[in-house]
Amino acid sequence: MRKKISVKKLVEALEDNCKIRGDTERKILTPAPIDKAQADSLSFCSRKGDEAKEMIKASRAGVIICSSGIKLARSDYQDRTLIQVANPRLAFIRLLQKFFAAAPQYGIHPSAVISPRAKIARRVYIGPYTCIGECEIGEGTIIHGNIHIFSRTRIGKNVTVFPGVVIGGDGYGFERNEENKLEKFPQIGGVIIEDDVEIGSNTTVDRGALGDTIIGEGTKIDNLCHIGHNVVIGRRCLITAMAMISGSTKIGDYSYIAPSASLINKIEIGKNVMVGMGAVVTGSVPDNMVVVGVPAKPLRENVRSK
Amino acid sequence: MRKKISVKKLVEALEDNCKIRGDTERKILTPAPIDKAQADSLSFCSRKGDEAKEMIKASRAGVIICSSGIKLARSDYQDRTLIQVANPRLAFIRLLQKFFAAAPQYGIHPSAVISPRAKIARRVYIGPYTCIGECEIGEGTIIHGNIHIFSRTRIGKNVTVFPGVVIGGDGYGFERNEENKLEKFPQIGGVIIEDDVEIGSNTTVDRGALGDTIIGEGTKIDNLCHIGHNVVIGRRCLITAMAMISGSTKIGDYSYIAPSASLINKIEIGKNVMVGMGAVVTGSVPDNMVVVGVPAKPLRENVRSK
Amino acid sequence: MRKKISVKKLVEALEDNCKIRGDTERKILTPAPIDKAQADSLSFCSRKGDEAKEMIKASRAGVIICSSGIKLARSDYQDRTLIQVANPRLAFIRLLQKFFAAAPQYGIHPSAVISPRAKIARRVYIGPYTCIGECEIGEGTIIHGNIHIFSRTRIGKNVTVFPGVVIGGDGYGFERNEENKLEKFPQIGGVIIEDDVEIGSNTTVDRGALGDTIIGEGTKIDNLCHIGHNVVIGRRCLITAMAMISGSTKIGDYSYIAPSASLINKIEIGKNVMVGMGAVVTGSVPDNMVVVGVPAKPLRENVRSK
Repeated sequence: MRKKISVKKLVEALEDNCKIRGDTERKILTPAPIDKAQADSLSFCSRKGDEAKEMIKASRAGVIICSSGIKLARSDYQDRTLIQVANPRLAFIRLLQKFFAAAPQYGIHPSAVISPRAKIARRVYIGPYTCIGECEIGEGTIIHGNIHIFSRTRIGKNVTVFPGVVIGGDGYGFERNEENKLEKFPQIGGVIIEDDVEIGSNTTVDRGALGDTIIGEGTKIDNLCHIGHNVVIGRRCLITAMAMISGSTKIGDYSYIAPSASLINKIEIGKNVMVGMGAVVTGSVPDNMVVVGVPAKPLRENVRSK
Repeated sequence: MRKKISVKKLVEALEDNCKIRGDTERKILTPAPIDKAQADSLSFCSRKGDEAKEMIKASRAGVIICSSGIKLARSDYQDRTLIQVANPRLAFIRLLQKFFAAAPQYGIHPSAVISPRAKIARRVYIGPYTCIGECEIGEGTIIHGNIHIFSRTRIGKNVTVFPGVVIGGDGYGFERNEENKLEKFPQIGGVIIEDDVEIGSNTTVDRGALGDTIIGEGTKIDNLCHIGHNVVIGRRCLITAMAMISGSTKIGDYSYIAPSASLINKIEIGKNVMVGMGAVVTGSVPDNMVVVGVPAKPLRENVRSK
Repeated sequence: MRKKISVKKLVEALEDNCKIRGDTERKILTPAPIDKAQADSLSFCSRKGDEAKEMIKASRAGVIICSSGIKLARSDYQDRTLIQVANPRLAFIRLLQKFFAAAPQYGIHPSAVISPRAKIARRVYIGPYTCIGECEIGEGTIIHGNIHIFSRTRIGKNVTVFPGVVIGGDGYGFERNEENKLEKFPQIGGVIIEDDVEIGSNTTVDRGALGDTIIGEGTKIDNLCHIGHNVVIGRRCLITAMAMISGSTKIGDYSYIAPSASLINKIEIGKNVMVGMGAVVTGSVPDNMVVVGVPAKPLRENVRSK
C-alpha cells in the first residue's frame, strides 16, 4: 500500500546543499534506525569520522543520510546510496515530516466540555473528554483527549498538548495561621503558553498566584513535569521528563533541564544553561553554565554554539 | 467592572490588631506582587528591617500590608498607605479570600460516573468526566473533573481534589513464586482523606493492602506526588511537588516534605520534621529534625515554632 | 454477611507442603496485618528465627501463616493456629486471591471511545472515559477508566492498566535547526505490552520513534513512572514508583528499579540488576549488580537467587 520514494524525490525535499553518492534511482519504502534497516530502508547516521564509516559499512540500509564531512570510498558504502548533508538528523527529520508523519486532523470531539466563553481558533484539534475553561486557543493547536485546562489560560498557535496534562490548576501556596492550620493563598493568576510549545503527557502547569505562569515560544516540555506557579520559562528550552520547576523560578532561553532535575523556587536560571540529570538546583545559575549534582554545582561552561 | 475597595473596608475585614499609616480613604482595585504593583494595587511585604524598608520604598503599590515590627518614617512610604500587622502574608491571604477569590460553585456535572452506592453530601462539586466508586464524600468538598476515585475511599469535608488525581488505585505488592513469576498481593484496603485536605493535579494515592491509607486533617499535597499503600500522613503537613512516599511509611503532624524528596517504605517520620528538596530518606527520622541529602542525614533541629 | 473460612479450607487451597499446629477447626473471617489482627483474623509472618517468634507471641491473630523453618513450642503460639509453609507471604497472597479479592468484572463502558479498527478480545474490561486508538488488546486484560491509549499499541493478555495512564504518546525527540528552533522528530513507532504486565496510575509509556517501546511479559510498573520512547524492558521486572527510564534504554529480565531512580538514555541495564532508591544511573550496568547513589556506583553483587 505504501508508495516507494526515490532518492531524487528525497533530495528535492531537502533544501540542504546535499551530495549524492551511489545510485540515484534507488527507492525506499520505510524509515528505520541504521542498525535495523533493510535494503528498502531510509536511515541516517549522526556520527563523524571512522565511527560513522563503520556504522555505514555495517548497515544494510538502502539509503543513508550522513554528514558531508565524512570521507568515504566506494568500498565503504558499496551498493548503498548516501546523501551527505550538514546535519543528517535534521535532514532525516524533515523527510519523516514530509513523507511519513500523519497530517494533523483538526476538529473538536463532541464530548469535549468547553466553556462557551472560550475563544477557540478555527483550525484546532480538541480530543475526547478534554475539559477547557474560559481560555484562548490559537490556530493549528492540538489538544489531545483526557486533558484538563482551567480558565485564564491562553494558548498560542501550533501548540501540542498530550493526554493527562493539567493546565491552570491552583499553585501551591499556604500560610500557617494562629491555630497552626494551613490557610490557602487564593490562586487567581493565569497561564500563558506561547506558540510552538509542546507539553508531554501527565505534565502539570499551575496557574500563577497573582500574575501568570509563562511558557515561552518553541519550548518543549516532556512527560510528568511539574511547572509551579509563576514560573517563567524562556524560548526554545528543553524541559525533559520528570523535571520539577518550583514556583516563581525563571529559566532563560535555549536552556536544557535534564530528566528528573529539581529546581528550587524563586531562582533564576540563565540562558543556554544545562542542568544535569537528577540535579538538585538550590541557587541561581548564570548564563552558559553546566551544573550537575546534589546540590548542583558548576561543572563547566556550556560551549554549545547557540 | 470590578469595584474599588477602600482601606477602611480592608481593615474591617482583618481581625488583626492592625495599624494604618497614611491615607485611609485610598481605594484599591486589584492585588499584585509588591514589585509589579501600581497605584491602585494592594500588595504585601513579608520581610523585616531594612530589607522591608527598601522594598516598600521601591514599590509603586497604593496599599502595602507589612510587618508591625518595621519602623518607618513618612519619607519611607510617602503617599502610600501601609497596613501593619503581625503576619502580613496571612493578612493579605485573608483579603484575597474575602474580596478576590471566586466563591466555590457546587453541583455535580451530569457526565460524572458515580456509583449508586456512593454517599455524597449535599453541597459538593464534582466535575466533568470524574469517576467515583462506592465512596463517601463530605460537605463542601470539591472534586474537579477528569479524576478517578475507586471504591472504599472516604473523603471528609472541605477537601479539594485537582484534575488527574487517582485515589484508591492498587498499591504495589508482588511476590515471586516458584517459577519466578510475580504474583500480586490483592489490594483490598481503602483510603481515608480527612477534612480540609488538598490534593494537587495528577497525584496518586493508593489504597491500603489490608488496612487503609490515611491523609490527616488539613494536610496539603501538591502535584504529581505518589502516596503508597498504607501510608499514614498526620495533620497539617505540607507534601510538596513530586514527593514520593513509599508504602507503609508514617509522617507525623506538621511535617514538611520538600519537592522531589523520596521516602523509603515502612519508616517513621516524626512530627514537625523537614525533609529537604530531593532528599532520599532511607531511615526513620525523630521529631523536630531537618534532614537533607542523598542519603538524607540530619542537618539541624527544626526550630520553627509550631 | 461474609462467610467464615475454616483452617481446613485454607489449607486445601494451598498446594504447599504445609504443616498445621493447633486447632484445625478454627475459622477466620478477615485477613489482617499481624500487628492489627484479632481472633477471627488470618495473618502472616515473613520473618524468621526469634524475630518471628516474638511477632507470633505478640499477635492476637487466630490463624498465622509462618515459615516452616521456625521452631515453636506450644507456649509460643498458645491457642493460635499456625500454618507453616516455605513462603508465608506467597501462601497468604494466594489465600487472599482465592477467598478475599473481588473477581474481575469484564465489559466495556459505553462511554469508552474506541477506534472501530481496534481489535479487542472478548473477555476484557474497559472503563469509563477511556480512549483507545487502533490497538490490539488481549483476553483477560483490564483497562480502567480515564486512560488514553494511542494507535499502534499492542497489549497482551491479563494486563492491568490503572487510571491516568497514557500509552503511545509521542516520544521526546527534537533537533535545533538553522534558526535555533526545535524541529520535531516525528514519532511513528508503537508500543508493545506483553502478557501479565501491570501499569500503575498516571504512568506514561511513549511510543517508539521508529521502532517500538516494549514492556516484557510479567513486568510490573508502579505509579507515575516515565517510560521513554524505544525503551525495552525485559520480563518480570519491578519498575517502582516515579522511576524515570529515558529513551532507548534497555533493562534485562528480573531487574528491580527502586522508587525515584533515573536512568539516562541509551544504556543497557543487565538481568537481575537492582538500582537503588533515587539512584541516577549514567552508564550501563552488567548482570547481577546492585548500584546506588548519584551518580550510581556498584555496591555489591545481587545475590538474590533468581
